[in-house]
Amino acid sequence: MTTVRGGLVLVLGGARSGKSRLAEAMVSESGLEAHYIATAEALDGEMTERIAHHRASRPAHWTTHEAPLDLAGTLKAIDLPGRVVLVDCLTLWLTNLMMAERDIPAAFAALAEACKSLSARVIFVSNEVGLGIVPDNRMSRDFRDDAGRLNQLIAALSDEVYFVAAGLPLKMKG
Amino acid sequence: MTTVRGGLVLVLGGARSGKSRLAEAMVSESGLEAHYIATAEALDGEMTERIAHHRASRPAHWTTHEAPLDLAGTLKAIDLPGRVVLVDCLTLWLTNLMMAERDIPAAFAALAEACKSLSARVIFVSNEVGLGIVPDNRMSRDFRDDAGRLNQLIAALSDEVYFVAAGLPLKMKG
Amino acid sequence: MTTVRGGLVLVLGGARSGKSRLAEAMVSESGLEAHYIATAEALDGEMTERIAHHRASRPAHWTTHEAPLDLAGTLKAIDLPGRVVLVDCLTLWLTNLMMAERDIPAAFAALAEACKSLSARVIFVSNEVGLGIVPDNRMSRDFRDDAGRLNQLIAALSDEVYFVAAGLPLKMKG
Repeated sequence: MTTVRGGLVLVLGGARSGKSRLAEAMVSESGLEAHYIATAEALDGEMTERIAHHRASRPAHWTTHEAPLDLAGTLKAIDLPGRVVLVDCLTLWLTNLMMAERDIPAAFAALAEACKSLSARVIFVSNEVGLGIVPDNRMSRDFRDDAGRLNQLIAALSDEVYFVAAGLPLKMKG
Repeated sequence: MTTVRGGLVLVLGGARSGKSRLAEAMVSESGLEAHYIATAEALDGEMTERIAHHRASRPAHWTTHEAPLDLAGTLKAIDLPGRVVLVDCLTLWLTNLMMAERDIPAAFAALAEACKSLSARVIFVSNEVGLGIVPDNRMSRDFRDDAGRLNQLIAALSDEVYFVAAGLPLKMKG
Repeated sequence: MTTVRGGLVLVLGGARSGKSRLAEAMVSESGLEAHYIATAEALDGEMTERIAHHRASRPAHWTTHEAPLDLAGTLKAIDLPGRVVLVDCLTLWLTNLMMAERDIPAAFAALAEACKSLSARVIFVSNEVGLGIVPDNRMSRDFRDDAGRLNQLIAALSDEVYFVAAGLPLKMKG
């Protein structure tokens, strides 16, 4: 189904489910040259704190790239066989696209297109956000619709998909 | 456990998880005469948009029925061997019952009773809504309690139950 | 991984997912002397109602203990081989800790430490609360972060972990 030579993996889970730590362990165990794409932007104190918390948990020799908006371009720019790229995370990227009022379907299509021709192994981390009650505002409903579409899109292209809860992975595909 | 001759299936998932598409694929693959029970009512512009989006994705030769409240009666009225009936979805039906101030436990009991004597295969789509934080208002808490009870009730009667995330089904039963 | 002689079990699920009933069935089927630790406090009418609803579903011969805050101490005080202790639930305990402005990391560490030396079998019930959209207030975000950390901590110590939806258990570990 996918044409990604290095292999595509989606790690899906809730907030503080251990999904980032699990994805980071996959990177370490791969033995490949590790690259990290952070989609987060430190726009306020709470976000800065969360970013610092995550950064401290990663090995110092990983190469970090920032891609709050141009995820497809960044993936193509650093793509090389023998590399593993961890993208953490897709839902923050979507948040950034919405804040910047970008064309969401076009951005999704560009990411899917980029994914199809990568030589590196790519591990995407994403939040499942659709399992609570219906949010009371339109923006949140649109966000969870778009997040659901994005997760479905990447899952369809992925070789392996994991659902993570309480730090434990459940294989959904692969 | 169930006495449904045609078989009962529950497809459970979050918002925009791909659960409707998965259930629709089950209908198409069954080779049976396809009937669709829509529980949605177009009460505002956003809802009209969501209904039209779903309708456009279904084959034109399916017979569509509308049952915002009398789901048990509609199931019994169209029940015939050799048919498959897709009910999309139980959580919208519950919303309609609440809005119309119907007797929820009585409506659940009537649905369960109807399910036990059907000849058609029936595929229920439902939302899991209890995996976020506790909602800040009583109506939402009651809704997710009732939705949880309904999902448990139908799951207990079902031959197969699937949990869907990112378009991928995870078999919980069957 | 765990040194608990009696065995540690985590039953994780959403609101009204059937997780308490499933855990209660595990207690009954164990054939061990049943003890129940309630972490709930009846602070308002709605809570009183929910507690009464749960209590009515348990066999009368179970011994009930109340531990809204000192869960580690209560577990150690009633610990004996041949006993099974059901703790329902961890997320309410966390709520109580937050309300009482206790030191959360210290309380988690004390619980983990207690778990490592128990002779009784212990079954923890907990809510997964991180699968909805990001809550709009800081306290709720902190709560779901702490709940996620607690679930990961107990899951790592547990011999068996189950994810429950619609009354059906999915084994995540064990």
